Amino acid sequence: MTLIGPTTSATEYRLDADAPLPEGLLAAFERYESALATNDVDALDDAFEPSDFSLRGDGSHMLRGRDAISSFRAARGGVPGRAIETLHVRVLSDELAIIIAMLRSPRGGRGQQTHVWRRRHGAWRIVAAHVSSTSSRPLDTTLWTAAGDPLLPPAGTGALDGVTVAVKDLFDVEGHRVGAGVPAFRAEQSLADRNAAAVQALVDAGASVAGIAHSDQFAYSLSGINSHYGTPTNPAAPDRIPGGSSSGPAAAVARGHADLGLGTDTAGSIRVPASYQGLWGLRTTHGAASLAGTVPLAPSFDAIGWLARDAETLLSAARAALPAAGPTAPARLVQIHEVSALASTPVRAAFDEVAGALGAQSIAPGFPLEEWFAAFRTLQAWEAWQAHGSWIAAHPGQLGADVAPRFEAAAAVTAAEADSARAVVEAARAEIREALAGSTLILPSTANPPIRLNAVQEAIDADRAHTLRLTFLASLAGLPALSAPLLDVDGLPVGVCFVGPAGSDVSLVETARDLTRSTPVHHPNTMEIS
Amino acid sequence: MTLIGPTTSATEYRLDADAPLPEGLLAAFERYESALATNDVDALDDAFEPSDFSLRGDGSHMLRGRDAISSFRAARGGVPGRAIETLHVRVLSDELAIIIAMLRSPRGGRGQQTHVWRRRHGAWRIVAAHVSSTSSRPLDTTLWTAAGDPLLPPAGTGALDGVTVAVKDLFDVEGHRVGAGVPAFRAEQSLADRNAAAVQALVDAGASVAGIAHSDQFAYSLSGINSHYGTPTNPAAPDRIPGGSSSGPAAAVARGHADLGLGTDTAGSIRVPASYQGLWGLRTTHGAASLAGTVPLAPSFDAIGWLARDAETLLSAARAALPAAGPTAPARLVQIHEVSALASTPVRAAFDEVAGALGAQSIAPGFPLEEWFAAFRTLQAWEAWQAHGSWIAAHPGQLGADVAPRFEAAAAVTAAEADSARAVVEAARAEIREALAGSTLILPSTANPPIRLNAVQEAIDADRAHTLRLTFLASLAGLPALSAPLLDVDGLPVGVCFVGPAGSDVSLVETARDLTRSTPVHHPNTMEIS
Repeated sequence: MTLIGPTTSATEYRLDADAPLPEGLLAAFERYESALATNDVDALDDAFEPSDFSLRGDGSHMLRGRDAISSFRAARGGVPGRAIETLHVRVLSDELAIIIAMLRSPRGGRGQQTHVWRRRHGAWRIVAAHVSSTSSRPLDTTLWTAAGDPLLPPAGTGALDGVTVAVKDLFDVEGHRVGAGVPAFRAEQSLADRNAAAVQALVDAGASVAGIAHSDQFAYSLSGINSHYGTPTNPAAPDRIPGGSSSGPAAAVARGHADLGLGTDTAGSIRVPASYQGLWGLRTTHGAASLAGTVPLAPSFDAIGWLARDAETLLSAARAALPAAGPTAPARLVQIHEVSALASTPVRAAFDEVAGALGAQSIAPGFPLEEWFAAFRTLQAWEAWQAHGSWIAAHPGQLGADVAPRFEAAAAVTAAEADSARAVVEAARAEIREALAGSTLILPSTANPPIRLNAVQEAIDADRAHTLRLTFLASLAGLPALSAPLLDVDGLPVGVCFVGPAGSDVSLVETARDLTRSTPVHHPNTMEIS
Repeated sequence: MTLIGPTTSATEYRLDADAPLPEGLLAAFERYESALATNDVDALDDAFEPSDFSLRGDGSHMLRGRDAISSFRAARGGVPGRAIETLHVRVLSDELAIIIAMLRSPRGGRGQQTHVWRRRHGAWRIVAAHVSSTSSRPLDTTLWTAAGDPLLPPAGTGALDGVTVAVKDLFDVEGHRVGAGVPAFRAEQSLADRNAAAVQALVDAGASVAGIAHSDQFAYSLSGINSHYGTPTNPAAPDRIPGGSSSGPAAAVARGHADLGLGTDTAGSIRVPASYQGLWGLRTTHGAASLAGTVPLAPSFDAIGWLARDAETLLSAARAALPAAGPTAPARLVQIHEVSALASTPVRAAFDEVAGALGAQSIAPGFPLEEWFAAFRTLQAWEAWQAHGSWIAAHPGQLGADVAPRFEAAAAVTAAEADSARAVVEAARAEIREALAGSTLILPSTANPPIRLNAVQEAIDADRAHTLRLTFLASLAGLPALSAPLLDVDGLPVGVCFVGPAGSDVSLVETARDLTRSTPVHHPNTMEIS
């Protein structure tokens, strides 16, 4: 056996080959490793065959074609140092070989890099790569702030026996400091000596808390990006934003780390991540569930909610946590064309098809949407500043470039502006409830599929403003709103939102489940055949 | 593109191939998937080429040769159901192809399975496989009971700034219930309202607590096996026991999940996992560090200790947590032949070589080892029953088949037997300290390398009794004992134990570090060339 000198580290490694090594193979491998160590993107690109069929997978996501692999590398900015412990080489022919490197990180994690190499025109290049590693962290800190086995045991038994919950970092959990997505805020809190009411309701019914998952800062965003903690991966679309502000609970559920996500929804913070991650998500009727022990954003609109992979789990949570008897969500579906039309063209096309299949009727109540939207945003901003303004003013520099300007704008809202906005909101609430009496409204949950992670801030802000025009209506009216994962827009999930009468929360989930079960709809969990 | 029918699940999948499919390739793949779904071990074996060079890696560990792959499969007992989302096929020739399956678990995790297939004598078989998956749990629950980002922040700054700690589940951590490796015990505890003294000392010096890691039940074992929580993987030898009872902190450090492990050592519970996992581990002088807020096992011998990947981190912890000035650990090394000789032959051979290289002199103090060993075990058992007997008696069936018989035997020890054992222990303590004055004792940390995970209980018990005869001496004398990762026994790590004068803890680590830095020794972190 041959010793090949240290390429990426000083650790010696053992070479395990089953046949004489073809000329140039190990030299090509060593060039690749050197390029990796120095992040020489051009050399790394050159190591892959220039084909649309070159493959690079990381265990959960596949890049196909050398261009996709190159773009990924260019954005990645290098890999952490690692040592090769053992190199297994299987020579298949003079022109084909498999090289598998077993890796060890100086931080203690381990990994495996499998390459299939082919020689063409005298040059060895990679046909396909599979790279995987064990984490050198106890938990995914873009997703979780704390987790346990469980973090909090059940306090009773009931309909949620065996269900594990990811709790948004806005709720008190006994023994922990609430953070609201802001480390400096967390640092000043004391350990909660009791659970938030919404947490207690779940553990009383048999659920256990798996952990505390991230929120956008003070829940004042819909993107799922947190400038301090990072961005949870969207398992349904790893190169897209996960949606927020209940980003952590949503991603925890989508990844299977928990069965149920407990979050809040002020202007869409349950419905948007549900839409972007292919989940079922319910925003409850305003005032139906206690917010005791929960960090507020805008109390006139704040409501708790849940996220799940299926309607049944969502139903169990709603039944356990909400009053037993409530009004029924009618099976008569309606849509408001001027609302649905606010979605982007591809979302509207997919939505119209499903709305047709579900037999939704169009109504035209003539809502003054722009006036209402302005009043909603004014009152939300005023209340957000009332809730957090003094802390933010005393702690400059603690908010990200996305959320900070929102609070700055909120600081400028006057009490008089808030008062007149409140009057508009109250009138709108009554008008919407009356217009929708006897029917269940459907609309797209979000204006677009999830935007790319590397989109510029202006594009993310514009996308948020676009989606808010759809989501704010249920918030304004204080109505329960369910996002169901029914649309597939160019391979990306988008939800259909069902809005029912006040207090119809449980029935709303039942109605949507029953209607969509018997109706053929696009479902992002079923891949299409190409 | 072709649709091939569901093999392991009802989810349709997309086939992505770059060339016409060679005859029989997909049929062979489908047979493999069917065999996986039904755990048809014979069919799975037949799918791999019958060669010593067939490879199957899981991202951290490589199986080499079809026999090794078969043994693994036979022990595994099937895989959880999963759906194939996309199948990427690269045809390299009529006889060679790569098939990569992107997987999704119904629980939400994702995975990738890369196979290189070759046709020989008309049959397609797998040459090499790389299988990886994302976890569907927030954290590795064989290792951690809770973890955070961090779970507990620093309470000051100092020599441990930036150091992350895995705390054994015997120490109080503010806001959490201590479990001592026994779920039913944890369920009856209240949330700790302050940290154990040993935890507080670390966070005061700038460390953060990454999480709470598993202990063997009531710390009364050296194997690292916990019948309730499972067994943490030993990263240095994945098919071997990790060693205990500080198994979780050791594995957390070895995997890079934390920089420092905080544990306890009554009869070897720091030194044994350090030895088995290639770590540095220090058992402190008895009484040198407070045990306030720590679940006891046998107070006459209980001592705290730390585990680290390097001597410097261990030193920082010892300096932060122990009194500043202590006696020096002499650079004059001695070994006691009748003690070293208790190790197995291969360990003794490796140890003798290192002892020679380090210039250790033999001494023959004529200790009555068997009498002392009996007294040690009697007093340990008596105190363990005093500490936990009433709880165990009131909670039948809560202990595993390994630990339960130890407590049963402990219950039979009489007060009179304990009294006479205590007299022997006190005399022995004085005699050992006198005999070792002016020198630092070295001995093998454990009698054997880590035993196989699938060993029968009798073999594990015999191995423990074997190792206890080496480890008990420092416990009996209340002396600081450091295990340094210096031996490589057939590719497996074993430690060399340095025993210094009472109170010499910091100096002991410095002495061992300095002596081994300048002396060529076997180091398990450097692979040999074969």
